[in-house]
Amino acid sequence: MSTSSIDLAVIPGDGIGPEVIAEAVKVLEKAVAAEGVELKQTHYKLGAEHWLATGETLPDEVLADLRTRDAILFGAVGAAPGDTRIPSGIIEREMLLKLRFSLDHYVNLRPSRLYGTVGSPLANPGTIDFIVVREGTEGPYVGNGGSLRAGTPHEVATEVSLNTAHGVERVVRDAFRRASARERKHVTLVHKHNVLVFAGHLWKRTVEAVAQEFPEVTHDYLHVDAATIFMVTDPSRFDVIVTDNLFGDILTDLAAAITGGIGLAASGNINMDRTAPSMFEPVHGSAPDIAGQGKADPTAAILSAALLLDHLGYAEAARKIEAAVVADVEKRDGTARSTTAVGDAIAAGL
Amino acid sequence: MSTSSIDLAVIPGDGIGPEVIAEAVKVLEKAVAAEGVELKQTHYKLGAEHWLATGETLPDEVLADLRTRDAILFGAVGAAPGDTRIPSGIIEREMLLKLRFSLDHYVNLRPSRLYGTVGSPLANPGTIDFIVVREGTEGPYVGNGGSLRAGTPHEVATEVSLNTAHGVERVVRDAFRRASARERKHVTLVHKHNVLVFAGHLWKRTVEAVAQEFPEVTHDYLHVDAATIFMVTDPSRFDVIVTDNLFGDILTDLAAAITGGIGLAASGNINMDRTAPSMFEPVHGSAPDIAGQGKADPTAAILSAALLLDHLGYAEAARKIEAAVVADVEKRDGTARSTTAVGDAIAAGL
Ligand SMILES: CC(C)[C@H](C(=O)O)[C@@H](O)C(=O)O
Ligand SMILES: CC(C)[C@H](C(=O)O)[C@@H](O)C(=O)O
Repeated sequence: MSTSSIDLAVIPGDGIGPEVIAEAVKVLEKAVAAEGVELKQTHYKLGAEHWLATGETLPDEVLADLRTRDAILFGAVGAAPGDTRIPSGIIEREMLLKLRFSLDHYVNLRPSRLYGTVGSPLANPGTIDFIVVREGTEGPYVGNGGSLRAGTPHEVATEVSLNTAHGVERVVRDAFRRASARERKHVTLVHKHNVLVFAGHLWKRTVEAVAQEFPEVTHDYLHVDAATIFMVTDPSRFDVIVTDNLFGDILTDLAAAITGGIGLAASGNINMDRTAPSMFEPVHGSAPDIAGQGKADPTAAILSAALLLDHLGYAEAARKIEAAVVADVEKRDGTARSTTAVGDAIAAGL
Repeated sequence: MSTSSIDLAVIPGDGIGPEVIAEAVKVLEKAVAAEGVELKQTHYKLGAEHWLATGETLPDEVLADLRTRDAILFGAVGAAPGDTRIPSGIIEREMLLKLRFSLDHYVNLRPSRLYGTVGSPLANPGTIDFIVVREGTEGPYVGNGGSLRAGTPHEVATEVSLNTAHGVERVVRDAFRRASARERKHVTLVHKHNVLVFAGHLWKRTVEAVAQEFPEVTHDYLHVDAATIFMVTDPSRFDVIVTDNLFGDILTDLAAAITGGIGLAASGNINMDRTAPSMFEPVHGSAPDIAGQGKADPTAAILSAALLLDHLGYAEAARKIEAAVVADVEKRDGTARSTTAVGDAIAAGL
């Protein structure tokens, strides 16, 4: 899919989103220019601010328009925690999750690497270099639940986790494929099949079946509670983790924390069948507390741009961005730099 | 409920269960003898070994008999991971979870404290002293789900999280009550209400309502993913965490890890209405790999016995056990000691 132009959708979003995305675009522009590739950008106003102004979350026309792009670069959305004008979770569900589900982003890819001197909270982190392949389109995220007698002493609230053979198999196969291309070639399934029997056994059976197709890849299993222990006592044991939407949400924030914080954690919401554009976003949120101050670390957004290029077939350009990030990160000594300064330094390092 | 005798049920279980429980009983006997309290013990054979021998998980008569006791001291259950003779999860669900649900153990209490020199994997753990009040009788643990077309490419597997106003309110009130008796008087609700809207809002509304009854207690909210970050970057921020059954399972293993490992983590499955006996157990499992070698750390089991005494109204005896544990733990320097040696040392320190 390597073409001579990229038709990019940019959704800067709220809070620090626009600030970090500006730096990611800066680096992206320089990286693709070096390859003689044209970068066409269309910016979309979406998020909490946009909702306050218009009442729109993600209109059908906008979704249709986004579908025509090659890929989406996404900043962050969400209002300040105290802002009661916005119904809680509405932007997350009706915009961010709607994009992931509508565009069939079934691989939520979240790499975790500890770069050189960057501060892990762990005393002895060792080498950390794994990826989490989080399912992105089903599980407890389907919004399938309800309330009976809400607000009364007899209220019953349910949440249904939906898991399909189709949905589980495609993401498990993706995890094995990625493991096969890595040095250690190891997949760890994380679930809780001793309690969540039905979903858990579907995942476990699927891993056993798909593993047959990849004799070169080893695999094991961890309950999600045990996985969090290893995440802080022996993170080096992980190579590729495959897990469901909710466990993946939890584990990847923890993984970001042990590798120096969500300022560095990139992610891709990927439709591997390419029936719709994939979307790349830093794992962090809109951080309203530091928005507009030029303090936000754009590294996660820049690494997300590298994942975007890799997905579009520009592996070399992606690798260069990652190398420039590593070089910059390894030089960090805790001195505060502005968002722009970090972006400039990484762009200069290309 | 402080009486002059305790009618104790003991379920040693599998693996290291019997070894650690022997030490917990040793310490318990000495602690209550000092108060002039008689300890009557009834031992029950239950667990994976028992299932292999008899096919029984938890017969109705045994459950009925357990109901007549004042409290249950529980070791650990579970076969070796590779043992294919036992259907996965059957002992966990049909015995351990059946006990928690049948005896209405709605408060799954898990204290986390970092004792002196005990090795946390965190570089700068700071002061860690919080409790997790995990709901124990509903949520995703209810076993309410199913498979359609299992084993075919059209399989659909569901898991239903059931949450009731009754179930949420009683555990939230318990958390506020415990917070009110602590120095910092702070409750943190952990959930994921931006995605799990129905259950999440029930929890959130309940916390807001119950908080009115405790004006002296402050409270805040964290999404579960963010909570795992704070668990490794700023665990001192936590005082009392209240959360659902599954999030509590995950967070308490992580909490155990950052406070030096599950060798130290105690728990109580508590029926605060005292309509059935409560059950106290180390958070760790049966650890078949080290079973029978006298290597297991009995500290978590001993601390669980202290929680048991506290629940039965012997606060002073409980405090003494905890003090003896702290004194022992603070002296540890990594030198290996046998299970019995640790038990003896703590008993001697009473
Ligand atoms: C904002 C929220 C809906 C989202 C999620 O839960 O997936 C976020 O936590 C993430 O991990 O991207
Ligand atoms: C063994 C298992 C069913 C149990 C649970 O999930 O509650 C355990 O992990 C725990 O935390 O006590």
